[in-house]
Amino acid sequence: MTTKAYGARAADKPLESLEIERRAAGPRDVQIEITYCGVCHSDLHTVRSEWAGTRFPCVPGHEIVGHVSAVGRDVRDFKVGDTVGVGCMVGSCHHCAACDEGLEQYCENGFTGTYNSRTPDAPGHTLGGYSQRIVVDEKFVLKIRHGEDQLAAVAPLLCAGITTYSPLRHWKAGPGKKVGIVGIGGLGHMGIKLAHAMGAHTVAFTTSESKRQDAHDLGADEVVVSRDAAQMNAHTGTFDLILDTVAASHDLDAYSSLLKRDGTLVLIGVPEHPHPTPNIAHLVFKRRAIAGSLIGGIAETQEMLDFCADKGIVSDIEMIRAQDIDAAYERMLRSDVKYRFVIDNASLAG
Amino acid sequence: MTTKAYGARAADKPLESLEIERRAAGPRDVQIEITYCGVCHSDLHTVRSEWAGTRFPCVPGHEIVGHVSAVGRDVRDFKVGDTVGVGCMVGSCHHCAACDEGLEQYCENGFTGTYNSRTPDAPGHTLGGYSQRIVVDEKFVLKIRHGEDQLAAVAPLLCAGITTYSPLRHWKAGPGKKVGIVGIGGLGHMGIKLAHAMGAHTVAFTTSESKRQDAHDLGADEVVVSRDAAQMNAHTGTFDLILDTVAASHDLDAYSSLLKRDGTLVLIGVPEHPHPTPNIAHLVFKRRAIAGSLIGGIAETQEMLDFCADKGIVSDIEMIRAQDIDAAYERMLRSDVKYRFVIDNASLAG
Repeated sequence: MTTKAYGARAADKPLESLEIERRAAGPRDVQIEITYCGVCHSDLHTVRSEWAGTRFPCVPGHEIVGHVSAVGRDVRDFKVGDTVGVGCMVGSCHHCAACDEGLEQYCENGFTGTYNSRTPDAPGHTLGGYSQRIVVDEKFVLKIRHGEDQLAAVAPLLCAGITTYSPLRHWKAGPGKKVGIVGIGGLGHMGIKLAHAMGAHTVAFTTSESKRQDAHDLGADEVVVSRDAAQMNAHTGTFDLILDTVAASHDLDAYSSLLKRDGTLVLIGVPEHPHPTPNIAHLVFKRRAIAGSLIGGIAETQEMLDFCADKGIVSDIEMIRAQDIDAAYERMLRSDVKYRFVIDNASLAG
Repeated sequence: MTTKAYGARAADKPLESLEIERRAAGPRDVQIEITYCGVCHSDLHTVRSEWAGTRFPCVPGHEIVGHVSAVGRDVRDFKVGDTVGVGCMVGSCHHCAACDEGLEQYCENGFTGTYNSRTPDAPGHTLGGYSQRIVVDEKFVLKIRHGEDQLAAVAPLLCAGITTYSPLRHWKAGPGKKVGIVGIGGLGHMGIKLAHAMGAHTVAFTTSESKRQDAHDLGADEVVVSRDAAQMNAHTGTFDLILDTVAASHDLDAYSSLLKRDGTLVLIGVPEHPHPTPNIAHLVFKRRAIAGSLIGGIAETQEMLDFCADKGIVSDIEMIRAQDIDAAYERMLRSDVKYRFVIDNASLAG
């Protein structure tokens, strides 16, 4: 089954229109016509081979929303016409301790990424959501209850949403808790919305005074300009949890010092160049922790989508055509987007 | 009340016999004739002014055991003759959130250290256990139920014991858990004994094959020579908790990679020179954490002493005279002690 897609044939080639093969839906598969696909930093890193191990041709995209066009004979939970989503994963081993706990993102045998993971299907690795259609094991398909008019803005929930939702839940963001979100980008803007919706006192950290009003509009109760030492110091020792969405190398001590005793600084980005080594005294003298978190499990992703549908939460997006992806990547690198690009996959037909 | 002590008059002076003043016991004070005092690395750092802020004359020592020789009129829980201990703290604010939770070590107004902290008493800062006598607020005096013949070996429980006990309890070491202890020194040898006694599968990490049998003798179920990559790799992703007692700068990634998903590497030493910056990917991809922990609260210290009395746990010690302290410091710096020096305070009379 030939499907139009947008991707790169090699690391030094631009993204271009491609024709790819999708497998026929097996007994437990769901075939999805993709309506929109969010644009994540990982797409850029992978397609440009900035991380090791990119397989070409590379079709990125793991913030996928669309409608079911066919289901395998054993599929019970989805039917043709359903509005569905696919996130960062399309498979896992299903028999390790992590999978048993519904934490497929930590599958001990390695989850199958929505793109750039090995698969028996042609061309031997998975191809993502910058395409018209995808066929996915029903266990990795999410139900979407938002309205059709919100669908494009739902797409980024599948990665940016769950990547912030999962640590907020795991470290118990909620009423009575003071939660910081570092960085107001694709991940951070979702972190602010979600922490606020969970009832936490939400503080946004930004390097730029110019983002103050935007951060308040997203739901931040307070906004701190991280370059202003006086503003930072005023929050010393007061946070239960700080979610650090900034993948660029930066000073972690500025944030660890703002945690209460027993507070946790959770990093959800892996920097290309290491952060400066953190001050261990900040941890020892207040029993603080620096932790990491990766995406979220499938059950938790469904929980997040339902939570967002109930609360009326979507991403703030800017829609683009697939043909505009290179320009979008450049703007993304400059943080020149509020806050997530989403591809209108109808553009792939052109 | 003049008391003989051993300490330094200045950073560049050797420790020598001193005469110091102790306050008369106030209504809530306990006066203690010190029998033994353990020798902690902190003593050396402080008395040699290797950390900022040493006040002179400096009398170190915060692993104190002895017998009550007088009590204030309002003291109900102690009487003359009781066997008691004093650890790293002799005061705290008693009205902050940390003190309210019995976590005086994290007192938000700063606890009063057993030595080198400001006090109204002469000479304006606290003087520690390298002395014949000490007068301490009853709230910071611990009951000791071990036999008199074990008393010298109980002294190190007051710092090395509680510093390992507290994180082991906080991060729930016990049956079914695999716990690593990095470093087999004063702290580490207590960590091994305590983790084993709590029922955890206890693995000792040492740089030296020569310590293998010793580590088993202390209670380690397994011993890993950390310089042997094959031995280390065999434990990848298997630890619930690793307690890192090594205060010298070292590679944390070697240990974070051994943690299970959701495992924690707890640092209980603050290195003089920073550790190499940890690999954040190790945290993100398994939701692991690097945390710190400081001593333990007074109630928890009593719990630890009772636990050790019940389990027959004491430190492994080498007894010295106060006059031998400089040589002991030099040997301690070479890790040439199994595993804690303890001063026989009777030597102060000489």
